[in-house]
Amino acid sequence: MAEAKDAGGLRPIAGMRIAVAPSGVGYEGRPDLLLAAFDEGATVAGVLTTSRMAAAPVRWTRARLLGNAAPRGLVVNAGNANCYTGAQGEADVRQTAAHAAALTGCRPEEIFIASTGSIGKPLDMPLLCEGLGIAHRKLGDDAWAEAAAAIMTTDRFPKAAGGDTRIGDTVVRLQGITKGSTMIAPHMATTLSFLFTDARIPAPVLQAALTDAADETYNRMSVDNTQSTNDTILIFATGAAAGHPAVEDAGDPVFAAFRAALHGLLDNLSRCILDDGRGTNPLIEICVTGADTRDAARQVGRCIAESHLIRSTVGAGKPFQLGRIVASVGMAGEKFDPDRFTLALGGAVLGRGSEFPGGPRVDLGPYIRDGVLRIDVDLGIGDGTATTRAVARPE
Amino acid sequence: MAEAKDAGGLRPIAGMRIAVAPSGVGYEGRPDLLLAAFDEGATVAGVLTTSRMAAAPVRWTRARLLGNAAPRGLVVNAGNANCYTGAQGEADVRQTAAHAAALTGCRPEEIFIASTGSIGKPLDMPLLCEGLGIAHRKLGDDAWAEAAAAIMTTDRFPKAAGGDTRIGDTVVRLQGITKGSTMIAPHMATTLSFLFTDARIPAPVLQAALTDAADETYNRMSVDNTQSTNDTILIFATGAAAGHPAVEDAGDPVFAAFRAALHGLLDNLSRCILDDGRGTNPLIEICVTGADTRDAARQVGRCIAESHLIRSTVGAGKPFQLGRIVASVGMAGEKFDPDRFTLALGGAVLGRGSEFPGGPRVDLGPYIRDGVLRIDVDLGIGDGTATTRAVARPE
Repeated sequence: MAEAKDAGGLRPIAGMRIAVAPSGVGYEGRPDLLLAAFDEGATVAGVLTTSRMAAAPVRWTRARLLGNAAPRGLVVNAGNANCYTGAQGEADVRQTAAHAAALTGCRPEEIFIASTGSIGKPLDMPLLCEGLGIAHRKLGDDAWAEAAAAIMTTDRFPKAAGGDTRIGDTVVRLQGITKGSTMIAPHMATTLSFLFTDARIPAPVLQAALTDAADETYNRMSVDNTQSTNDTILIFATGAAAGHPAVEDAGDPVFAAFRAALHGLLDNLSRCILDDGRGTNPLIEICVTGADTRDAARQVGRCIAESHLIRSTVGAGKPFQLGRIVASVGMAGEKFDPDRFTLALGGAVLGRGSEFPGGPRVDLGPYIRDGVLRIDVDLGIGDGTATTRAVARPE
Repeated sequence: MAEAKDAGGLRPIAGMRIAVAPSGVGYEGRPDLLLAAFDEGATVAGVLTTSRMAAAPVRWTRARLLGNAAPRGLVVNAGNANCYTGAQGEADVRQTAAHAAALTGCRPEEIFIASTGSIGKPLDMPLLCEGLGIAHRKLGDDAWAEAAAAIMTTDRFPKAAGGDTRIGDTVVRLQGITKGSTMIAPHMATTLSFLFTDARIPAPVLQAALTDAADETYNRMSVDNTQSTNDTILIFATGAAAGHPAVEDAGDPVFAAFRAALHGLLDNLSRCILDDGRGTNPLIEICVTGADTRDAARQVGRCIAESHLIRSTVGAGKPFQLGRIVASVGMAGEKFDPDRFTLALGGAVLGRGSEFPGGPRVDLGPYIRDGVLRIDVDLGIGDGTATTRAVARPE
């Protein structure tokens, strides 16, 4: 897969068109609205926030996914999350879908919607509908760079990546755009990600592949321990690529290369979000091995990733107490073998058994490479592994 | 109960003696070792860290509590946590107990031990034993202010509180010292708390009262989302107070005043830790009501308390997006009634149902009183309530 922080690596996708417009709903003087239109025959899958305060567009999109809707359109607005907006928010989502459906010639239930931005402010529907009209007139093949920029809120740069992969011997296209950064700035940041392929993939197969890939990437990173009300990942498969073997099952060997490419794409895009969030601070990459189960490895990785103490010391570049990692491992509550436990920074083993052979305090400088502090923790119990990424932040 | 940040409110407790010494194990030039000796007949109860990396002294003390040991001594050292020290750490704890027992004339199993400080560094046992000898020669009634200071690590001030309470019509004494602050400074901070009373209370009754009180105070605060390997709360009841009615059950009405006083004391001491940790930053007090259960209320309070986003914005004194609280409530995953949900800052209702009547963004200044930002969240479902406290921190 091509690695790109701009949209240079993106190309037209057969079976769909895309456009942006400056609606004024979220921002003045820049495009803040995205419209995509899909030909008949596309499929879709999604991963949505588990928040109990899920925004109106998330509830709408969840209902479409559960109803096995065939996607004909996607509407994304930036700057207003349409969350905590009550019955008005629900009505506004329905009106958005109806308006987009009328423009593109489909049913409202075939329109997928995502929003990002401030919570608790009703949408300006006249502006939004006017923006949709503008975007509809501009629908075409090429507005990918503009699309990546239009969905930004507090992001410092647009994020997109993509490339070719294969199903059997047939080349297919897979690419995506995403947004997300810190949540420190005036507006709520939320994570949105939209992926597109011209492959023909049944929705259940697409869903299985997306769930797995998201679980290892978007669900394994932490910028500030805060989940959003609007987090949305959607993948659309237009089915316009001709002649590849049919994919009937997510475990089908013919589908393996595509699944690996999807995992790589989400890994790449989620890494772009972390790079945006960290600025000049190190990225902390925590690799837990030897855990009792995969869930145990994830729990240990999460406790290290969410330690304010570890993140702030790494971010401040101060001398680092290795015991802070030990304390977070203990806090996770998962089993480990005290005799086989090892702890390494940047590949150098600094803790073994119950000892720090070189002492409990280290200067992190030599262990940070290319802006990344890698922490390896082996629990010495089983085969469970997990990689978690977090952003260091000075305090 | 008297409220005090120094040890001015503390008095001698019949049935025990106390002393400090400058051992040099943790710090040079200041007392860093505490020894207390109890007459025969005392009882003890404790709440210890749930960390899987629990330090050697925690494992020792847990074994003593599980073995229903009658306490005859307490040893606390500051500056070295004796954690991640392997078999050597275990041997050092046994030697500490043996030495203190020989000095005070009891069995090693009757000595309780707690440590706080850096992780991964073996104790200097010759210095520790020498310090114990010095402290033993000084054992007396009055060293309470010194005791509160001797257990400090990164604390900015010593913390102690206490007063008189009653069992039936008999006045008894209840007081305590504690330590804890941020974990940002060079050494690991840990939370230790030692409570003392001259009342005669069976250990199981004392344990029930302590567990309840700790659960509502020490277990409901967050300085930086990090649990320690050494967290220890112990309460010792000497039984030297004459003539109060026998307490046979934690639910005994004759015991109600003491339980309330114990809750108040832990509330006071835990508040001292938060005040130490926050410096000039606001304290955030989160009162969740109307939850399905008490655990649900606690989970919502914890999600708000641990939001880096909320704490950093409050700490920085920037305009505050009320949606951030809504997002954290949603993240908690607990039930709420969208129509009856209310959100108040400093007692002023700013969110009701699914609306922010005054808009989604507020200046926090008017809602912070005496350094405290109170956040009330009513979930509108049931009777579950919980209060959680967190420290704001600018970033």
